[in-house]
Amino acid sequence: MKFVAEIDIMPIKEILDPQGKAVKLGLHNLGIDQVDDVRIGKHISLKLEADTEEAADEKVKTACQKLLANLIMEEFTYTLHSA
Amino acid sequence: MKFVAEIDIMPIKEILDPQGKAVKLGLHNLGIDQVDDVRIGKHISLKLEADTEEAADEKVKTACQKLLANLIMEEFTYTLHSA
Repeated sequence: MKFVAEIDIMPIKEILDPQGKAVKLGLHNLGIDQVDDVRIGKHISLKLEADTEEAADEKVKTACQKLLANLIMEEFTYTLHSA
Repeated sequence: MKFVAEIDIMPIKEILDPQGKAVKLGLHNLGIDQVDDVRIGKHISLKLEADTEEAADEKVKTACQKLLANLIMEEFTYTLHSA
């Protein structure tokens, strides 16, 4: 079976996000005010094959923990659906 | 009213994604096979205030079009919900 995982990797709340701050300033300069907070991370779209949804979930979790996210500074969330 | 927009900015399909190719290779080296495709983009979480949901939607769209996405190489999708 084919699955698609949509993964978000974001800086954890305790860590400053200078890129987000820069974007907030840029939005202000564009005239878009009333923006409280901007945080910027990565979005990864992964197409994979697995026998079951559980196996696919396990693969995606391993990929996030071992390669995609730096768990000291980042946290990850994902959704998995069959393609 | 406070809203949260979750924005995904991804390279368009017609454009090669070398970062995604590198991650695919990395996953293979980790023993995670059967990965068909990896694409890597940005995820932006935006907290903003607006009077109505329509106004918030308009702001987020403008932000994406004018600042966040390079529409020649990237496409954006977002979801908006009240915080």
